[in-house]
Amino acid sequence: MVIVGAGFGGLRAARALGDAPVDVVLVDRHNYHLFQPLLYQVATAGLEPEQIARPVRAVLRRQRNFEFRMTEVTGLDPNGKRVVTTDGAIAYDYLILAVGGETNYFGLDGVVRHGFGLKDIPEAIRIRNHVLHAFERAMLEPDPERRRAWLTFVVVGGGPTGVEMAGALSELIRLVLVKDYPRLNVKDVRVLLLEATDRLLGPMPPRLREAAAETLWRKKHVEVRFGATVADYDGERVLLKSGEVIPARSLIWAAGVQAVSLTARLGLPTVRQGRVPVAPTLEVPEHPDIYVIGDAAYLEVNGAPLPMMAPVAIQMARTAAANIRRRLAGQPPATFDYHDPGSLATIGRNAAVAYIRGIAFTGFPAWVVWLVVHIIQLIGFRNKLFVLLNWAWDYFFYERAARLITSMD
Amino acid sequence: MVIVGAGFGGLRAARALGDAPVDVVLVDRHNYHLFQPLLYQVATAGLEPEQIARPVRAVLRRQRNFEFRMTEVTGLDPNGKRVVTTDGAIAYDYLILAVGGETNYFGLDGVVRHGFGLKDIPEAIRIRNHVLHAFERAMLEPDPERRRAWLTFVVVGGGPTGVEMAGALSELIRLVLVKDYPRLNVKDVRVLLLEATDRLLGPMPPRLREAAAETLWRKKHVEVRFGATVADYDGERVLLKSGEVIPARSLIWAAGVQAVSLTARLGLPTVRQGRVPVAPTLEVPEHPDIYVIGDAAYLEVNGAPLPMMAPVAIQMARTAAANIRRRLAGQPPATFDYHDPGSLATIGRNAAVAYIRGIAFTGFPAWVVWLVVHIIQLIGFRNKLFVLLNWAWDYFFYERAARLITSMD
Repeated sequence: MVIVGAGFGGLRAARALGDAPVDVVLVDRHNYHLFQPLLYQVATAGLEPEQIARPVRAVLRRQRNFEFRMTEVTGLDPNGKRVVTTDGAIAYDYLILAVGGETNYFGLDGVVRHGFGLKDIPEAIRIRNHVLHAFERAMLEPDPERRRAWLTFVVVGGGPTGVEMAGALSELIRLVLVKDYPRLNVKDVRVLLLEATDRLLGPMPPRLREAAAETLWRKKHVEVRFGATVADYDGERVLLKSGEVIPARSLIWAAGVQAVSLTARLGLPTVRQGRVPVAPTLEVPEHPDIYVIGDAAYLEVNGAPLPMMAPVAIQMARTAAANIRRRLAGQPPATFDYHDPGSLATIGRNAAVAYIRGIAFTGFPAWVVWLVVHIIQLIGFRNKLFVLLNWAWDYFFYERAARLITSMD
Repeated sequence: MVIVGAGFGGLRAARALGDAPVDVVLVDRHNYHLFQPLLYQVATAGLEPEQIARPVRAVLRRQRNFEFRMTEVTGLDPNGKRVVTTDGAIAYDYLILAVGGETNYFGLDGVVRHGFGLKDIPEAIRIRNHVLHAFERAMLEPDPERRRAWLTFVVVGGGPTGVEMAGALSELIRLVLVKDYPRLNVKDVRVLLLEATDRLLGPMPPRLREAAAETLWRKKHVEVRFGATVADYDGERVLLKSGEVIPARSLIWAAGVQAVSLTARLGLPTVRQGRVPVAPTLEVPEHPDIYVIGDAAYLEVNGAPLPMMAPVAIQMARTAAANIRRRLAGQPPATFDYHDPGSLATIGRNAAVAYIRGIAFTGFPAWVVWLVVHIIQLIGFRNKLFVLLNWAWDYFFYERAARLITSMD
């Protein structure tokens, strides 16, 4: 059988089939699994990319029935039961599509061209390079208005990624970079978080949403703007729908996700955000040998589509793998049952919001929970150790190791 | 005063002028100082780039008379006493040029286009990506000859960089990658080290040169070829001067160094390898306000030009800084006196050669010396700690953390 995608869903599915009587071929165009929830820390010079990624071959080295192929999937032949790649076709009897999501720019070409998405390692490194470069440019810029534009950082989107990115960016600047730039006037620096609706962290209870906005604003000096919709960006000025213009040389787009564009090219039916509707057993209704899981799958639970988040992908992987085992054993399939593990978002040092099993908490306790949960979920003991050491060092010394501009934009 | 270049020479010169009665402006096109001697370990997935580089601003944060400008030097006006950069001119009363060296391809365009140099972080990452990618391509290649070409790695140049690169590459493959690729036939893998003369590590005593070749050959399975001069490379076949053709998809060029091409554009006289001849006081004879140090400087000691190595740059930085202080104090300048600190090259686990104060040793003791010397020289306690932890982990678990292909060639 074939699994496409080595993200949370694909990797867990491969593992869950470890002792099943099948040969598992996992295909991905990258050779590593990426722990996306910490990508914003690579973008803000807190972690190194190698610390939140692991080679797929290393993760599944001991699994006997496993084979990895690094190649790009370009098409699907559901009747011939073959996945088409740039290196030829691969036949399957069962297929799990776990191809994931990508940034949704909602057709804003200016943002695509001049803004930064945050979905993979090269994007995170580009943000890191650009932010550090902006400070270097600011130091060389004699004109005060142009200097302020270099020092204005706009983050768009009030979901967890936007909140975490804005908080981490502000801390990088106010706790670390101020020491590097003694001539910098910190009053010239602005970090804005733009959100189109009237709330941050939509699905959280009101008390936590307000705590997050309050902490960002009062403690982290992030200007949170509600009802602010971006209409265009030319690399120097952000134009809002209201007509307001914000001069800014940096725009980080965390305002939307959609299934990767590959999904649309596979010939399967798609709905909102390019996702493929699946039955409660996670099969594609027209092609019962194909399972779609994670961000690429569209499934409603209690009348609402499941969010595009790692826990959904991980839980779907278990169900899809179990259903393949059941079919091999001649048993009827199980239906997917989503357990919401709660939600967490960190805002910076000692500050986070957490909503777990109906309990809401904030501040230091939430931050500790966030930290423990993320360390546990990181794959590989080496990664856990190095991330923990990095965090401890940064926490006590107000540092960020990875402030290198490793290439020019 | 102005210092151009934040390598070993420039950084030490800035430090040595820390309490001198001058304002020091350091200019570099990168925002970091790179510990080049360990770059081959980034290329072979042993270390992460962040661990062998440090932001210049962080290194010299506490120095009051210091200012850093990240910009590119494009010219020099020695009569007007100004350095020209892409961000305008900077006036100086004294200038230290510590612009460093770059790969010398000796006019071999094919090697420039299809081979890999190893002088900066992007190049090291490109080698890492390419080597790992070669294994992925080999696994997908049905034709045995084409597969073997993907698995043939040619390192050119028998100096310390070539020897260390070939040893580390062979170890990466034979100790680590074999575990990732259970279907790989290790007999298909070749690592070659081509040297045009009849010896490796030229300046070392014969016993050490022979020990290095012997260890590479017997223990590390590197095919060492003497008298092998590369005539051309097209990305698939290495053509030797002898007419022999070696099919190989990877060629790493460590066969030559020259002063960076900038040196030639500054209007100063240059000699061999584009280096600027300096007086024994390290001034440029025609322009006594300009000091040239490190790889860019040409100075003969005992009838031979000084090698292009970090210890020379560091010692020259001290002399140049001292001479500027002396001139400010109205004292006559001192002449440069080179103390050879000895030479070291590591070949892999437990294997190195060392020649220090006339004492030659090999094997495990030399390897321990190499390790201690490099850890001590790394700038920053955090880098020391993380490199040491990485090495310890890799040593005991036969691992390499950074085996990620982070972009496609």
